[in-house]
Amino acid sequence: MDPTAPESTEDDVPWLTAQEQRLWRAHLEVSRLLTYQLERELQPFDLALNDYTILVELSEAPQRRMRMTDLATATLQSKSRLSHQITRMERAGLVAREGCPGDRRGLYAVLTQQGWETMRKVAPHHVRSVRHHFVDRLDEGQITEMYEALAPIAARLRELRGRG
Amino acid sequence: MDPTAPESTEDDVPWLTAQEQRLWRAHLEVSRLLTYQLERELQPFDLALNDYTILVELSEAPQRRMRMTDLATATLQSKSRLSHQITRMERAGLVAREGCPGDRRGLYAVLTQQGWETMRKVAPHHVRSVRHHFVDRLDEGQITEMYEALAPIAARLRELRGRG
Repeated sequence: MDPTAPESTEDDVPWLTAQEQRLWRAHLEVSRLLTYQLERELQPFDLALNDYTILVELSEAPQRRMRMTDLATATLQSKSRLSHQITRMERAGLVAREGCPGDRRGLYAVLTQQGWETMRKVAPHHVRSVRHHFVDRLDEGQITEMYEALAPIAARLRELRGRG
Repeated sequence: MDPTAPESTEDDVPWLTAQEQRLWRAHLEVSRLLTYQLERELQPFDLALNDYTILVELSEAPQRRMRMTDLATATLQSKSRLSHQITRMERAGLVAREGCPGDRRGLYAVLTQQGWETMRKVAPHHVRSVRHHFVDRLDEGQITEMYEALAPIAARLRELRGRG
């Protein structure tokens, strides 16, 4: 951080070492720059990255529909933010909201035919972006090792989020 | 993606293998959930993650000031988005805008004394969060390997962004 910063924190959490700091900054950079680049490459299709994620989730769900609550959990969004997004996507004809007969609590998001076709059209381009900017830059060993390092971190954060 | 998706894309970019897909999803999850968690743990200090990043950048700069253009590049934001953020941070007393005598083009963001004190107060807590949710979950080998995998990806994306 800063050359004048103390050696350790108030309650003795040590500062990041040079190597830890380098990794942390690289992680932040990849995370932000990749989002930027993927958003950019989805722009010609009038989709944001979050829109694409929702199309994928719905396309993989039985009958291409998901309860709004489950979709919020799956896409790591708050219910209110998801609701705004679904409204925008509904206007674009990509999804529809549907109630469920016999389930008063149930409000579903359903992929429309147009949403399905959009997903099928965009997917190859998006996969190419993901390969080009990330996956194809890693060898097989790196892919396995990085997955093994990240999976438990993701699992723990998911659990924390669920509790919050 | 979807069980009915084709084996390869239009122009023969192959779909992600199961292992590639697992890594890609783990990366996205860690990226999103970590941002969420770090934001959450900065909330008691009335700071967003972007605010904290700017405090750190300025605190490391000579005379704790940076040209707005350079600060935008360093924090990977558009100039207009940075400008809005600096306005908010100015209102909170954390930074100030300053012109530069003899340099008509130069508009600087400067860390105030209050901004500096805020950074010093918050840093130990933020480092603890970063350790707790990410760095301390990795062993030394994983830290080195992940850095070596991510650094060239970050460098390339930075270059692409610069060109855009």
